[in-house]
Amino acid sequence: MIVNSPAVLAEVEAAFDRYEQALMENDLETLDALFWRSPHTVRYGVGENLYGIDEIAAFRKARPGGSPPRRLLRRIITCFGDDVATANVEFQREGGGRIGRQSQTWVRTDEGWRVVSAHVSLMAEGH
Amino acid sequence: MIVNSPAVLAEVEAAFDRYEQALMENDLETLDALFWRSPHTVRYGVGENLYGIDEIAAFRKARPGGSPPRRLLRRIITCFGDDVATANVEFQREGGGRIGRQSQTWVRTDEGWRVVSAHVSLMAEGH
Repeated sequence: MIVNSPAVLAEVEAAFDRYEQALMENDLETLDALFWRSPHTVRYGVGENLYGIDEIAAFRKARPGGSPPRRLLRRIITCFGDDVATANVEFQREGGGRIGRQSQTWVRTDEGWRVVSAHVSLMAEGH
Repeated sequence: MIVNSPAVLAEVEAAFDRYEQALMENDLETLDALFWRSPHTVRYGVGENLYGIDEIAAFRKARPGGSPPRRLLRRIITCFGDDVATANVEFQREGGGRIGRQSQTWVRTDEGWRVVSAHVSLMAEGH
């Protein structure tokens, strides 16, 4: 299995950037579109555990103002073969505070690259 | 791409169970062996962000007593094709408290199934 084929990496980076922009703009249509439309999709957020695209879409819709503005500190995208990638980032929300982490697994579906699993958390301090 | 081929699912479930048992026994050799031996491997823990297998192994070695004992509450493993899977679980540490979440991406390497990316966190309360 080829790790980090440059062509695949470029595709996933573009999909990741599109997701991040949609998150900052609270563009629900794009956010929903970039998650896999499946009951198997999982998203663990800072304060919620969501199973299936319906729960994920409902959460976003109900979140007033969307995700808090944030700045990415570090980003590691790794591709496995042509159809799978992981994206891990550290971030800090505006106003500072604890370091956040976002992990996503992306899969190339017939409709394009989609997030099939995501986990967002704030790192514990003094742990 | 076939999702959740029963044969693949059985393999990943066995690998996952082996990892969980090693975690509870603080069997460092097995834990290290089940993570991808690569500088690209990422592990976000409750209170640490680790990049590359060396940082991950050093963290485990330095952790007195290993992972706190825990009980799995819910487990979702999903396979994408023959060589990739995600494993998401909710857990509760002994003595109760906040709900934990563990997300892993598994890839079939030449040496067998390995975790290439992991994220563990405790869900925020009253978020």
